[in-house]
Amino acid sequence: WFFVCLRPEKNDVSNLISVLKNDLFLRAARGETVERPPVWMMRQAGRILPEYRAVRSRLSGFIELCTTPELAAEVTVQPVDLLGVDAAIIFSDILVIPEAMGLRYEMEEKKGPIFPKTVQTKADIEALLAGDNAAEQLEYVYRAVEIASKNLGNRVPLIGFAGAPWTILAYMVQGSGSKTFDRARRFLYAEPVLAHALLQKITETTIAYLKLKVASGCHLVQLFDSWAGILSPDLYRTFSSRYISQIVEALAPIVPVTVFAKGAFFALADFDAMPCSVIGLDWNTSPAFARSIVGNKRVLQGNFDPAALYGTPEQVADQTEAMLQQFGRRHIANLGHGVYPDTPLESVKAFIETVKVHRY
Amino acid sequence: WFFVCLRPEKNDVSNLISVLKNDLFLRAARGETVERPPVWMMRQAGRILPEYRAVRSRLSGFIELCTTPELAAEVTVQPVDLLGVDAAIIFSDILVIPEAMGLRYEMEEKKGPIFPKTVQTKADIEALLAGDNAAEQLEYVYRAVEIASKNLGNRVPLIGFAGAPWTILAYMVQGSGSKTFDRARRFLYAEPVLAHALLQKITETTIAYLKLKVASGCHLVQLFDSWAGILSPDLYRTFSSRYISQIVEALAPIVPVTVFAKGAFFALADFDAMPCSVIGLDWNTSPAFARSIVGNKRVLQGNFDPAALYGTPEQVADQTEAMLQQFGRRHIANLGHGVYPDTPLESVKAFIETVKVHRY
Repeated sequence: WFFVCLRPEKNDVSNLISVLKNDLFLRAARGETVERPPVWMMRQAGRILPEYRAVRSRLSGFIELCTTPELAAEVTVQPVDLLGVDAAIIFSDILVIPEAMGLRYEMEEKKGPIFPKTVQTKADIEALLAGDNAAEQLEYVYRAVEIASKNLGNRVPLIGFAGAPWTILAYMVQGSGSKTFDRARRFLYAEPVLAHALLQKITETTIAYLKLKVASGCHLVQLFDSWAGILSPDLYRTFSSRYISQIVEALAPIVPVTVFAKGAFFALADFDAMPCSVIGLDWNTSPAFARSIVGNKRVLQGNFDPAALYGTPEQVADQTEAMLQQFGRRHIANLGHGVYPDTPLESVKAFIETVKVHRY
Repeated sequence: WFFVCLRPEKNDVSNLISVLKNDLFLRAARGETVERPPVWMMRQAGRILPEYRAVRSRLSGFIELCTTPELAAEVTVQPVDLLGVDAAIIFSDILVIPEAMGLRYEMEEKKGPIFPKTVQTKADIEALLAGDNAAEQLEYVYRAVEIASKNLGNRVPLIGFAGAPWTILAYMVQGSGSKTFDRARRFLYAEPVLAHALLQKITETTIAYLKLKVASGCHLVQLFDSWAGILSPDLYRTFSSRYISQIVEALAPIVPVTVFAKGAFFALADFDAMPCSVIGLDWNTSPAFARSIVGNKRVLQGNFDPAALYGTPEQVADQTEAMLQQFGRRHIANLGHGVYPDTPLESVKAFIETVKVHRY
């Protein structure tokens, strides 16, 4: 119940930021002139690290790690200690939102998430919790943020995240991962009214959730629209951008917000109209193409091909340098998607080191 | 052995075309002024039709249907008889190319293709057949084309197809379908010399194969680069476009060529530089975006969202009309990808009928 008194409106985030030992990432996210791009990696807290695998092997599965704050916090800090990245991202899952709304999921090894029950009808949607009532179910996440924040000791900023509402709906309706998410897309075409009702509930939950994450110690939030790329531009505008926009509007006054939509080159103009601080790019979208849409002032994040990390450290260093040249200033170095679990650590280190010795 | 005397160079394709009762598709593909867009659907010969499922249920599986010329021809003609489309496409699989080169595959229900042995080393590549020697292994395909051609009785043109070399390599190296094709992409980064050697062998095989398909009765060929969208623009240029270009250069003097690369909005300029007749679009790529890259003269094919066919026939008719308006002239109406197997037939018919009554 202590969340009530920790609402971000009452929490002086700027004070938290001012004491950071390495605030390069936040300065870059705000568009300030910096000496080099900050660097971190999506899914950096994960299976690439032997130390992560050691923690994970003691547990029943991924969900137990997400729901055990001390351990989630431990693996959150590992990449800062072991890889020297400029930001930590809280170890968690985008699917805690359906869980909080009342739709339980399981994680099957190699198959991914499975929802025993899915959302199909008006009654299914009405039965879901939303907003603060849902967000308050996720105390284990806020506790993990608090512990990670304490353990980081203000060395680097801590990123909080959530899935974009369309991506969350896709799982809630489809019931699992899918190459085409045909059932989820069918829902948009066949049941647009229900789809909007569900998206609005997810949006309100996500806003409450991200505010509580910030209140617990996150310095920036990132939205992941992992399944953006399977919608047409028109459908994306109708069923995704407008809900992302609500979240950005709600969070931007409190912390910088990054929007990352995989496969959604067509949505860059939508994002550019939002008060987000950073737009993430996947490796399909060249910096030049993105700049042609969003101009030179917007901060971009990305977009090293995770598969390029399978090369030798020398190859990785060369390609990283090429990427940095392509982006130029107003860039946060990252991959174009999450790092693959079997990526060699030497190549990961070559990627990070190359960015860290770069100077504009 | 009769292929030798049926080489396309000796086969008067223009005579074949001149006797077609419905040559709308070919006239549109050549960029001629037509009264309405022609219409067909990727994967129209397939599980959407009860008559297809009846044929399929008598067989051990998908591969048996591909390799039985009389039955492959039968299902090829079904959509012309039952749906009234303006073109037939030979029922086959892009993975006959690895099969012809010596890499056998199996099709597992719900899991897709599995290659018991994959390509990883120089020796693996050297052991593969290529060019005419490989293409001659696929007599069952040419025979299916001949029978389908005879059964069509010149009612509509017959389309032949192949996978683009990168997509074929992706399966040969990965060994199965994959969300990320991480092993295939690793191969490009870690073994570029081997990758180029394999792509060249696939390219030569594909050229020989498509020439034999044309010699057997196909009026147009389409290349499918199904996994274009998982490569970066730079990698795509290096490992995909240049091989597609070789195939287009070899076939364009004989028949119109369509290039369709799923997820490769960034490759439109590459395709526009090739002598292909038609460029296919998926439903992520708006006609306006494509026109901004390839100009107004290029014929475009696509790009109805297959999931939109889950709507009612009235919704489908409205959305089809909206698509036709967006494309305007120089358009071949199609989906943005293969039709989903559980699509309601009434909606498929609404899509086709809406195009057929449209007039410019």
